[in-house]
Amino acid sequence: MVDLRRTDLAIESRELYKSDSGREVPGVEVDQEKLENITITRVNIFDPQGSMTMGKPMGNYITLEIPDMRMGTPEFNHYVSRILSIELNRLMRRFPIHNVLVVGLGNWNVTPDALGPKVVSRVVVTRHVFEFAPEEVKPGMLSVSAIAPGVLGITGIETADIIKGVVDRIKPDLIVAIDALASRSTARVASTIQISDTGVSPGAGIGNRRTALDYSTLGIPVIALGIPTVVDAATMANDTIDLLIDSLIKATPQNSQFYQLLKDLNRDEKYSLIKEVISPYDNLMVTPKEIDEMIDDMAGIVAEGINIALHSNMYQ
Amino acid sequence: MVDLRRTDLAIESRELYKSDSGREVPGVEVDQEKLENITITRVNIFDPQGSMTMGKPMGNYITLEIPDMRMGTPEFNHYVSRILSIELNRLMRRFPIHNVLVVGLGNWNVTPDALGPKVVSRVVVTRHVFEFAPEEVKPGMLSVSAIAPGVLGITGIETADIIKGVVDRIKPDLIVAIDALASRSTARVASTIQISDTGVSPGAGIGNRRTALDYSTLGIPVIALGIPTVVDAATMANDTIDLLIDSLIKATPQNSQFYQLLKDLNRDEKYSLIKEVISPYDNLMVTPKEIDEMIDDMAGIVAEGINIALHSNMYQ
Amino acid sequence: MVDLRRTDLAIESRELYKSDSGREVPGVEVDQEKLENITITRVNIFDPQGSMTMGKPMGNYITLEIPDMRMGTPEFNHYVSRILSIELNRLMRRFPIHNVLVVGLGNWNVTPDALGPKVVSRVVVTRHVFEFAPEEVKPGMLSVSAIAPGVLGITGIETADIIKGVVDRIKPDLIVAIDALASRSTARVASTIQISDTGVSPGAGIGNRRTALDYSTLGIPVIALGIPTVVDAATMANDTIDLLIDSLIKATPQNSQFYQLLKDLNRDEKYSLIKEVISPYDNLMVTPKEIDEMIDDMAGIVAEGINIALHSNMYQ
Amino acid sequence: MVDLRRTDLAIESRELYKSDSGREVPGVEVDQEKLENITITRVNIFDPQGSMTMGKPMGNYITLEIPDMRMGTPEFNHYVSRILSIELNRLMRRFPIHNVLVVGLGNWNVTPDALGPKVVSRVVVTRHVFEFAPEEVKPGMLSVSAIAPGVLGITGIETADIIKGVVDRIKPDLIVAIDALASRSTARVASTIQISDTGVSPGAGIGNRRTALDYSTLGIPVIALGIPTVVDAATMANDTIDLLIDSLIKATPQNSQFYQLLKDLNRDEKYSLIKEVISPYDNLMVTPKEIDEMIDDMAGIVAEGINIALHSNMYQ
Repeated sequence: MVDLRRTDLAIESRELYKSDSGREVPGVEVDQEKLENITITRVNIFDPQGSMTMGKPMGNYITLEIPDMRMGTPEFNHYVSRILSIELNRLMRRFPIHNVLVVGLGNWNVTPDALGPKVVSRVVVTRHVFEFAPEEVKPGMLSVSAIAPGVLGITGIETADIIKGVVDRIKPDLIVAIDALASRSTARVASTIQISDTGVSPGAGIGNRRTALDYSTLGIPVIALGIPTVVDAATMANDTIDLLIDSLIKATPQNSQFYQLLKDLNRDEKYSLIKEVISPYDNLMVTPKEIDEMIDDMAGIVAEGINIALHSNMYQ
Repeated sequence: MVDLRRTDLAIESRELYKSDSGREVPGVEVDQEKLENITITRVNIFDPQGSMTMGKPMGNYITLEIPDMRMGTPEFNHYVSRILSIELNRLMRRFPIHNVLVVGLGNWNVTPDALGPKVVSRVVVTRHVFEFAPEEVKPGMLSVSAIAPGVLGITGIETADIIKGVVDRIKPDLIVAIDALASRSTARVASTIQISDTGVSPGAGIGNRRTALDYSTLGIPVIALGIPTVVDAATMANDTIDLLIDSLIKATPQNSQFYQLLKDLNRDEKYSLIKEVISPYDNLMVTPKEIDEMIDDMAGIVAEGINIALHSNMYQ
Repeated sequence: MVDLRRTDLAIESRELYKSDSGREVPGVEVDQEKLENITITRVNIFDPQGSMTMGKPMGNYITLEIPDMRMGTPEFNHYVSRILSIELNRLMRRFPIHNVLVVGLGNWNVTPDALGPKVVSRVVVTRHVFEFAPEEVKPGMLSVSAIAPGVLGITGIETADIIKGVVDRIKPDLIVAIDALASRSTARVASTIQISDTGVSPGAGIGNRRTALDYSTLGIPVIALGIPTVVDAATMANDTIDLLIDSLIKATPQNSQFYQLLKDLNRDEKYSLIKEVISPYDNLMVTPKEIDEMIDDMAGIVAEGINIALHSNMYQ
Repeated sequence: MVDLRRTDLAIESRELYKSDSGREVPGVEVDQEKLENITITRVNIFDPQGSMTMGKPMGNYITLEIPDMRMGTPEFNHYVSRILSIELNRLMRRFPIHNVLVVGLGNWNVTPDALGPKVVSRVVVTRHVFEFAPEEVKPGMLSVSAIAPGVLGITGIETADIIKGVVDRIKPDLIVAIDALASRSTARVASTIQISDTGVSPGAGIGNRRTALDYSTLGIPVIALGIPTVVDAATMANDTIDLLIDSLIKATPQNSQFYQLLKDLNRDEKYSLIKEVISPYDNLMVTPKEIDEMIDDMAGIVAEGINIALHSNMYQ
């Protein structure tokens, strides 16, 4: 059975823990900064207990919450790109980088999963200049390449295998991997960007990626950048049921038998109860009606953020 | 509040009634034919009581249930087009038609709503031959034109106003209107085609169309052809809750207080209870992950079905 | 035979005349303004002789030459939108306007012809607010609607018929019609915007539009906005031959028989000579390799220019 | 300067030679078969002299000329797929194959170059079944994978480097590489399919691919499948000039000085003469106006042809 508590977002893992336990996750440091229309939360999972509790590898997770990203005036998107580039550099510039590979994960034929490939189309690549026209290389210029490897269902090849093959040949010293994520919350869709230095965990997002893209599998650091573009339909069904039970509990006299019964429904019982309920939704996704336009806008924001971070000399 | 019992499909209205009441809807005749991999159900709402009970105008509704339409080998799609053309002609050929306008409703920027515009792109039009090259008109040829009027949110104009304007100028004697529908059931998405001779009812489908396209507003018969491409997220939330309550009822001793409480939850109470639950899903839709490809395939099937029905001489 | 001297651009007609005759076109006033990276040429055809010479209706033609539009940083595009909005208002604001209909001409299935439909998708429409939520209308707000009528080959209906039908129902007092144009010159493609107050002339652009959209056919003023997105392949073949003959003339001793022969090739002889040469290119178009991206960028620039011009209160 | 005699199609090389020399190319064997609406020409370049004369590697080139492929009824396309699968098997089945990698060359953002990536989306892949669900492998099933590596301008990485990286990891024993080609002739666009067992030569097609994909670089046989989707604008300018000179020669008295001058224009002089003429067309391409639809249709035909050839057991 699908783990209905799973989420790609570190801040959601933390919220789940805090709302269950009433306290901060042990082994985790959190710091928050509020800019105009953007809230930045930096979560550092610094010990194995934190990692286990959060269900995520140790490392840094930076989340930008940007409710207005869905509206998208060109000026506002440009502002988001600048802020994003600063946070990206916070993670990237701790490594000595000369040769960066941008990887756009996801399926270009499925609109909400096409974020990565669309970013790849707009990232400014320079690696071929180093190779074929070295006289045009300018001081401070990074070698940047980009690839959209596709998904297992289209290629028949694990994404990690394609990336390893390319990494073995072109020897980058850093990967930036872009991915569309699934969120627990409809409010986060198209309004949250998460970047982390821990790579892409297996099973993430919409697709079916099994082997992780991270330092342990690729031998170089992997910065992951993700934006929730869908809510999983099964997750949504589960959340609906949680909300209903909460409502029923509130509406029921505390000493009644019904109240007690609802309270006694523990998570496992509830799950087995609704297992059958959610099964028809397994291959479905929940997205905003305007997702096609949103994906284009967000790909533009992310690509510009990466371009500024990697080619700062072009934007001065 | 949204009417959570509303459905675009006559066979769903009938099922809801039958499962509530245990009997056939009065004022409605139903006939079923089973072909290889296609079940055809023909519902005739023949009196006002039937119309009221079904929440649909009097007239004929033909539904093709085609579970394999999602898989779509070219041969199978072609077979579906042929069957569809026969059922279309069953409704169309009772009118003396010379001049047919195909209307592709929906928003070409929203994948699951783009069915109608995509069909328009593939329908064979001939009206301009009559107008500009009458010497090329062959015996038995119908004058066919086609338009994709867009949606209110993009045009600022009611769809009915655009269609009326065009009808006033080009004077067709029949309209065939294609539309993406919302279904109550995830199983119906991309596997059911409904055609009817009652026009397109207001508020249908994904978009926001207020004035009906039918004989009363346009002065000519309107054949509607619809395929469910989404499940409304609010409907899905409601159905999940219904399923949960049913499960709880089954799992509860019949003489317990809890059982009685669940049984006593009438529809209105339940709705007001979950009203708040579903509000975040108002602007969301639930679709299959492969919806982009499915829409292309279905547009091909429908366009070919219409082409065969209208230009039978081309296909002999 | 196609008129190989035809061009959609007034400044090209003028250049052809000036290079043939060595003087300014009689009946035509020209004024030029140079901004940073944009040259604005305002041509006023003020008498019938000017109209005949130019092969264009009397009226105002404003051309923005923007070589850098092809490169398109977001900032530069935004600057172009602002300048465009000022020139649009120069033509539009001489009419008392309350209710504007934006018409996106062209075929959304043919990339270089999809400019108009793409602009329609991005124009901010407000007419439905006036109709359905008048309490939200703010002072100074214009009623704006938009339609992409398609092309004759897809609809079977003349574009002018669709527009007339819609105009009869919604009674706008001004039309702004967007169209992809054909240019004589490859240098103009995706780098020139022409706006005029004379409507859209028949036979313009890539498609096949026969009846004009202008004051005489629609009863309201029509502002036309066009951008060259293709060079006609036949035109290109002709220009190649002109260039070759010029080269041959230069390379030939002035008193030779060959020189005389080349000089004596008058336009008609040359045309009948090359008529056969160009016939295979009749259904071809010549476009930049990056046309898909360029069309998206230009649709964004034009839509924003129109939005600023029509909804100036939104942008202050 | 671009080699204006270059062509991707072996039958065009042969035609050029035959029309220049009046005889068959030495070192080349040609065999032709005429089916209903399809002419199949099989060219075998069997010695180094043939290879030099043709400007192509030694090996087999099979060309299907299909004038009706542009019209594309579903039935006809299906017939073409069947014929294509037979010719593909003629080249492929001489190798003992177990594990095939399909490579879709080209840029998915440039419509006429998107053929390869679109085919990849529709090829049935099975390699992951062997890897993750070996119990579902059926007798006779081939392991098929597919990748669309992108183009140098988007990735910054040579296509051959990406393919080599992937080949090193997944060890296929045959590659089938799909590519959009440039043709000398407008008549061939979207109506000719060439398959060969010699791999993809450098510099082919629309993109800029430098290192060959063939046995010598990859260590496994490479079947190349190409369809012309554009005419290079510079080639077209050159052909126009050739046609003009021919016309001038015909129209000129044989003993005149002009006639002699035209006759004396040898290829080199002519090229340097027109070098300047064609320079503005360097970044342009010439395509049919309906190219978007054509690419979709052809991707369907090719993918189905490959699927039948590789998964013959699925189609019995």
